[in-house]
Amino acid sequence: MEILTINNVWMMICTALVFFMHLGFSFLEIGLTRQKNTINILFKNLFIICIGLLLYCLIGFNLMYPGFEADGLGILKFAGFGLDSPMTTEGLLDLSYNSGYTFWTDFLFQGMFAATAATIVSGAVAERIKLGSFMLFTILYIGIVYPIVGSWQWGGGFLSTLEIGKATGFHDFAGSTLVHSVGGWAALIAVYFLGSRLGKFSENGHPQVIPGHNIPMASAGVLILWLGWFGFNGGSVLSADPAATSLTLVTTSLAAAAGGVTAFIFSTLLYKNYDITMFLNGILGGLVAITAGADQMSPTDAILIGLLAGIVIVLGIKLVDKLQLDDPVGAIAVHLICGIWGTLAVGIFGNKAGIDQLAIQGISVLLIGVFCILFSLLFLGAIKFTLGLRVSEKEEIDGLDSHEHGMEAYSDFRTNQH
Amino acid sequence: MEILTINNVWMMICTALVFFMHLGFSFLEIGLTRQKNTINILFKNLFIICIGLLLYCLIGFNLMYPGFEADGLGILKFAGFGLDSPMTTEGLLDLSYNSGYTFWTDFLFQGMFAATAATIVSGAVAERIKLGSFMLFTILYIGIVYPIVGSWQWGGGFLSTLEIGKATGFHDFAGSTLVHSVGGWAALIAVYFLGSRLGKFSENGHPQVIPGHNIPMASAGVLILWLGWFGFNGGSVLSADPAATSLTLVTTSLAAAAGGVTAFIFSTLLYKNYDITMFLNGILGGLVAITAGADQMSPTDAILIGLLAGIVIVLGIKLVDKLQLDDPVGAIAVHLICGIWGTLAVGIFGNKAGIDQLAIQGISVLLIGVFCILFSLLFLGAIKFTLGLRVSEKEEIDGLDSHEHGMEAYSDFRTNQH
Amino acid sequence: MEILTINNVWMMICTALVFFMHLGFSFLEIGLTRQKNTINILFKNLFIICIGLLLYCLIGFNLMYPGFEADGLGILKFAGFGLDSPMTTEGLLDLSYNSGYTFWTDFLFQGMFAATAATIVSGAVAERIKLGSFMLFTILYIGIVYPIVGSWQWGGGFLSTLEIGKATGFHDFAGSTLVHSVGGWAALIAVYFLGSRLGKFSENGHPQVIPGHNIPMASAGVLILWLGWFGFNGGSVLSADPAATSLTLVTTSLAAAAGGVTAFIFSTLLYKNYDITMFLNGILGGLVAITAGADQMSPTDAILIGLLAGIVIVLGIKLVDKLQLDDPVGAIAVHLICGIWGTLAVGIFGNKAGIDQLAIQGISVLLIGVFCILFSLLFLGAIKFTLGLRVSEKEEIDGLDSHEHGMEAYSDFRTNQH
Repeated sequence: MEILTINNVWMMICTALVFFMHLGFSFLEIGLTRQKNTINILFKNLFIICIGLLLYCLIGFNLMYPGFEADGLGILKFAGFGLDSPMTTEGLLDLSYNSGYTFWTDFLFQGMFAATAATIVSGAVAERIKLGSFMLFTILYIGIVYPIVGSWQWGGGFLSTLEIGKATGFHDFAGSTLVHSVGGWAALIAVYFLGSRLGKFSENGHPQVIPGHNIPMASAGVLILWLGWFGFNGGSVLSADPAATSLTLVTTSLAAAAGGVTAFIFSTLLYKNYDITMFLNGILGGLVAITAGADQMSPTDAILIGLLAGIVIVLGIKLVDKLQLDDPVGAIAVHLICGIWGTLAVGIFGNKAGIDQLAIQGISVLLIGVFCILFSLLFLGAIKFTLGLRVSEKEEIDGLDSHEHGMEAYSDFRTNQH
Repeated sequence: MEILTINNVWMMICTALVFFMHLGFSFLEIGLTRQKNTINILFKNLFIICIGLLLYCLIGFNLMYPGFEADGLGILKFAGFGLDSPMTTEGLLDLSYNSGYTFWTDFLFQGMFAATAATIVSGAVAERIKLGSFMLFTILYIGIVYPIVGSWQWGGGFLSTLEIGKATGFHDFAGSTLVHSVGGWAALIAVYFLGSRLGKFSENGHPQVIPGHNIPMASAGVLILWLGWFGFNGGSVLSADPAATSLTLVTTSLAAAAGGVTAFIFSTLLYKNYDITMFLNGILGGLVAITAGADQMSPTDAILIGLLAGIVIVLGIKLVDKLQLDDPVGAIAVHLICGIWGTLAVGIFGNKAGIDQLAIQGISVLLIGVFCILFSLLFLGAIKFTLGLRVSEKEEIDGLDSHEHGMEAYSDFRTNQH
Repeated sequence: MEILTINNVWMMICTALVFFMHLGFSFLEIGLTRQKNTINILFKNLFIICIGLLLYCLIGFNLMYPGFEADGLGILKFAGFGLDSPMTTEGLLDLSYNSGYTFWTDFLFQGMFAATAATIVSGAVAERIKLGSFMLFTILYIGIVYPIVGSWQWGGGFLSTLEIGKATGFHDFAGSTLVHSVGGWAALIAVYFLGSRLGKFSENGHPQVIPGHNIPMASAGVLILWLGWFGFNGGSVLSADPAATSLTLVTTSLAAAAGGVTAFIFSTLLYKNYDITMFLNGILGGLVAITAGADQMSPTDAILIGLLAGIVIVLGIKLVDKLQLDDPVGAIAVHLICGIWGTLAVGIFGNKAGIDQLAIQGISVLLIGVFCILFSLLFLGAIKFTLGLRVSEKEEIDGLDSHEHGMEAYSDFRTNQH
């Protein structure tokens, strides 16, 4: 009883911290885009957290943790609508549900995660997507794709028991792949369908800088996300086990620090400029990369994973630009590319490192990628050819705030239009 | 001993989260008003949290938890000035005080609550109240009215034992009435005494939009408040009991989500516009409404309570406008109207739902309302006819920052005056 | 085992809160300076937290907690590079390391502290220091000076056993001296070497107001710092002991509140103006001052310490101006002067108050001061005469953001240059 109480306190705190990440994502996305689309971005983010929780209550939780039978395939099962809390014969909540948390904490912690995947997409499609279309896609993606993929591993599905050679089971501790690249794949497809913002690429394909309008807010967003990651990774221990939780916080923080410093140094060498957005994305890249294996790395491993993420992020952003994909906040490089890197890193540095484990990690990344790409193509394609995905040119130029919301974000300030 | 330590850790965290709500309130109030009054608003909010704690130390705690005798009336008792910590014979803090928290945690958690009531008033009277007059009213209201009303229920006073038919005892878990509507009534009276801001109503009484100057800040405020509510409601369990605390976080979050989504949909249908301030106030309305019964609702109940709060908030703001009351942040609709709704909802959805319980809830709301109104009239009336409540027309037009504080909030930015 | 788990949960939460202080410091420093240097300030603060953790991992932790032998002098010892986690014979983390936290939590909590000292310097030197030079100094000061000074007391060194008359051992609970004045001395020397910003002092030496550009951000910074101090002081109990932790939160909050209210009243009497920056610095002054003895003060003591800090801060800022030292955020008055006041206050109000204890406190302040001054002179002097400390006049006038970072913090806003 006492140990359950302690564990549950820790898990509730982590839940609160993951919730707080939504402010971090909002600040980051606002900060790196233009003021004329600020309200639109805030609206999207408020919608994601609210609808995310409601959907997870209605269908997501039971789709993600369906209680796969031992003899099933472990691909798809649905345990029914709504929350069915386990009760004792006296009509109280059955606390024997789990020694690490109550049924309610389990639901809420996982529900906070669910909304995150959609938030990642939000950043990549900012400044040009129709609000209604984005909301519809969010409902489909959080409601269906995220929990099904999650069930394959965290719900005890087929990836959790996959065997290759001597290795057994995919390892994705807190979701470099299950959360971050799931969001990242949708971001990639969405950016491809949407096209780039007006003026992002010159006629001969050179990327143009469209500066973010509020760098303090973007920086605050990253620090809030780092804080939230203490809950994201720390809570993924699923108990307050002192050795595991504290190691996780150390590896998480060291990877973030190493990612930031490396990205800053590498981009300064490359571009002769102290670029703060590279520093910020380096920190995030480190955080995303350590997420798959934060429970089993040494400090040195964590620093190496972060360090490489810092380089990957700089090159990844360059690559996305090269492909003429317009990702205003760098979401594809941060969440997709560093998410893949972190997942593979478990096969290189983790407890069961080796070629067999690496193969399992790679195949899992691939299978999940294919599934996410297919459903993103399906959903986004269907929306594109019915409702449409992109706002009109006039609306994009004027800004989404005035057209969709009839408001300005900073009504007392004199602003520049660009 | 161990269970006390766990409980106390949880209660301290909740205390910290409730403290953090003051940043949420500050951001919300600033964001929804004009830049020329920003420093004034910040000053008020800093004053409230500081003086609130000091006053609660000096008199509030002992006025709110006076240890009513079993045979007393349970209306008014004062246990003396200052904090008198219970000590063991060895001179150590007596930990047998309570199994859920120490004496110090009890004081600080309750002290953080005390300041909240005044913060609610602050939003409603923004942009036109004299700073000195507001500070004086804050001292009187936090120092006297809030703790007396609180003692009636949480201090074991007469409302906690009120009997009607088969029902016994008012139920207000974390303060939909004891905190939110206590603040809301004072806000109502203050707005009535103050009158509306220049330009808020046209000559024929139509409300004019006076846009808030920093919507990202307002949105951040709401997300911070939601986070803080994890402590406000979660801590009101008064221990870390795993079933009760985790249920509370779930009902709190689902009501917030439902309130936000409903207010957004309902206002979009009504006004053909994605209005973010309605979304924000819908979330807050859901939070205020669930507060009275967050410990005893099912997820479905919580969603229904939030859903109705989302509609109540949109209609409530319309009503306040109709009455030509000028409430810049919507505090009356959020804290008073949704506070009443949530308190009554306990009689409809709660464990002891029924007409008798509903009657107790209604009568308690009424008695507390009358008390708050009377004292607000008395204090605000006295201040109005001595010091004056409202700044001069020139000061209002120029902004309170330049007159009262001799400073600008954003000195490097070019701003519009309106 | 269970008690370790509880304690460790509390310590991890405190670690997260101290981490979050870095957002508070960033907001405060940005808010009180000009928009043209915003990115530069953010960059510095991101660098400090990242490099601080990495350095503490590499050398700091082992320099600060070297395991002084009983017969050593307790002045300097280095336990080797990197983290050497204690393991059981089964290869698991040895949880018998400490009953209050694991090895990993110990490292991370202390690592979060380490970066704080450099952050204090950052505020004082803002708007004119070369980024590279600042980064180099940060590495030297966090890497070497902070951990050595820390080892003298927290690492079991000579100050912790110093005897004068009947008193034994310096008492600096959470670092009024070991953290705040360590940062403060370096700030003082750095400001002296750098000189004042262009236009800060008129030809006849009168200080001119250079207004901060974002007062909401500065205020948010202070509220975040107050929140973070719950972890800074609450975690310095080094366990979740319910009596000690909860008393600490109460004394911390009451001193902050008293400091704020006093500074506001005193400065209003002096300058006939509700000066919000004085209110903010008063809160911080109260927090810094209580830090040395937060574990052993009564509420009345805490209020008195805060109250005097509120007066000290107003006079301290006046003094710094008088000396023609240009400290844009008031770091010297807050961290150095209030840090000294709080450390001495332990000898006046603390459990072992008396002239002997006061002498120990004073001598420790002095010895640490001399050491910090010498090394600051050495490091900053060496940098000044090699790399240079100060940016060019043109760069200072244009702002550091455009020169060093090639970016604007608020690219969509029209701003004033000054």
